[in-house]
Amino acid sequence: MATAPQHDAAGLWAPACTPVDQDLAPDAPRYVALVKRLLEEGCHGVAVFGTTGEATSFSVEERQVVLEALIEAGVAPDRLMVGTGCAALSDSVALSAHAASLGCKKQLILPPFYYKQVSDEGLFASYAAIIDRVADPALAVYLYHFPRLSQTPITHGLVRMLAAAYPGTIKGIKDSSGDPDSGQGFIEAFPKLAIFPGTEVLMLELLEAGAAGCISASANVNAPAIRAVYDAWKEDRPEVVELQQGITALRMVLQAAPMIPVLKRILARRLGDPAWLALRPPLVQLSAAQADALETGLAELEFSLEAA
Amino acid sequence: MATAPQHDAAGLWAPACTPVDQDLAPDAPRYVALVKRLLEEGCHGVAVFGTTGEATSFSVEERQVVLEALIEAGVAPDRLMVGTGCAALSDSVALSAHAASLGCKKQLILPPFYYKQVSDEGLFASYAAIIDRVADPALAVYLYHFPRLSQTPITHGLVRMLAAAYPGTIKGIKDSSGDPDSGQGFIEAFPKLAIFPGTEVLMLELLEAGAAGCISASANVNAPAIRAVYDAWKEDRPEVVELQQGITALRMVLQAAPMIPVLKRILARRLGDPAWLALRPPLVQLSAAQADALETGLAELEFSLEAA
Repeated sequence: MATAPQHDAAGLWAPACTPVDQDLAPDAPRYVALVKRLLEEGCHGVAVFGTTGEATSFSVEERQVVLEALIEAGVAPDRLMVGTGCAALSDSVALSAHAASLGCKKQLILPPFYYKQVSDEGLFASYAAIIDRVADPALAVYLYHFPRLSQTPITHGLVRMLAAAYPGTIKGIKDSSGDPDSGQGFIEAFPKLAIFPGTEVLMLELLEAGAAGCISASANVNAPAIRAVYDAWKEDRPEVVELQQGITALRMVLQAAPMIPVLKRILARRLGDPAWLALRPPLVQLSAAQADALETGLAELEFSLEAA
Repeated sequence: MATAPQHDAAGLWAPACTPVDQDLAPDAPRYVALVKRLLEEGCHGVAVFGTTGEATSFSVEERQVVLEALIEAGVAPDRLMVGTGCAALSDSVALSAHAASLGCKKQLILPPFYYKQVSDEGLFASYAAIIDRVADPALAVYLYHFPRLSQTPITHGLVRMLAAAYPGTIKGIKDSSGDPDSGQGFIEAFPKLAIFPGTEVLMLELLEAGAAGCISASANVNAPAIRAVYDAWKEDRPEVVELQQGITALRMVLQAAPMIPVLKRILARRLGDPAWLALRPPLVQLSAAQADALETGLAELEFSLEAA
């Protein structure tokens, strides 16, 4: 029987891709449309401005404008988890305070990521400064562990320090290490926190271990199938194993090339909208060879590029 | 006989430390005083908002306010090299355009540093977007190669692409790899560019090879001695070897602990101003053991903590 602790956020969360216009600025109308679509496709929520959303490539103001557009368009703040962690402390504070003021209390916060081999004491000071300055008792912080990109791991020691100092605020961890042992370790060490693996490849395995759900880039293009795994697991249905194999197979095709251009390419095809192909530098579109390999891989899985 | 190509920037440049006030915001009056002092101590110029200046820990606006304070205080824009490279393209453009508008045409630009293993094509697009959008024919770009922190190396291929597309704009490279072979490689491949090693340990060796000078953190606390090496080399005086040994020995002591807190600690002592000890998170002050080891190391070299 599937049992899991109740968390404020659980299930499938999609880290939405961010469309850019001809000036490479975020394209709010296309963004709003994608976020609404992801919620309709079965995502429990949407993580806006994460790594998949090219968050760190946009300025504070660009991110604020787009978040405001989502809220004005009627997206429920409770179904968003807003990325606010920047290299600059003052930028993180500005983004967190702004999001909280819009009702977006769930925030997925990267550690500062320029300096390397910084101490847990320094990372604690960074998170503490954000929490203290935002000063919102409803703030719900999810720590963002993505060592390959941030090169700044969220250690157990750091989580312990933060959870002790801010027990009502530290709510969970997104573990984008891709390592099941890392996810298991967080789940065992911090049973009260909501742990989200960053890939659906680990979804069933870590749900069984006590994860809250999954926050996966693939949900931009495969949300219904990933949601089906979550539901089958919740309902303890035996087909969950085969469903998991299906989403894992697709993920292998998606991550064979750089994921963000892969996802934007599929969105462009599926939505019939080539504007979706654009990326903000330093990311670039797939090469012709990468695009061909992607098409072949998707065709082998009979993955539809038509709208779901 | 020492001969070197003429470059727009040459000699000793100090990447100034950035003091912060009790709110952890940049402290403009103390900053202006340090920059003026470094120029008086013999630095040919000052690199503002580099790694040593904790640049990436400050917002665009915080950096702009401090740069304006420097110019208003009468510091010649020509003696500054302004760091403007951020993770977000729009932030880099804003900082570059602002600095250029103040007359600060020399800019030391980090590549975007969140995404890893990005292509030279993507890095080219980033630099090209900055140069195109700033659209200032006097802009003088120095590429910032600091692979340990940015994890995004400036490759020879990237330099070739940029120098071909923007021959009047790409002026040089700061090589903070600490690797003499890397510096030699840039000098040999790009004889028209001004190559600056990021440590004075390599100063004499790379000046002999054709480097333009040195941009070193140590200059915050040891500018006169480093300048003396440069002058002795220029004048072909034999004592240059012994002078180089002296600055190398001090550097070894400085870099035995995290450099930025080491430098701020020495500045606090020398200026009699404990406010200089503060760092913006995620950086933290030295531990007591680190501070003791630093004091011992400095005492062994008879390095004066009194004002020069």
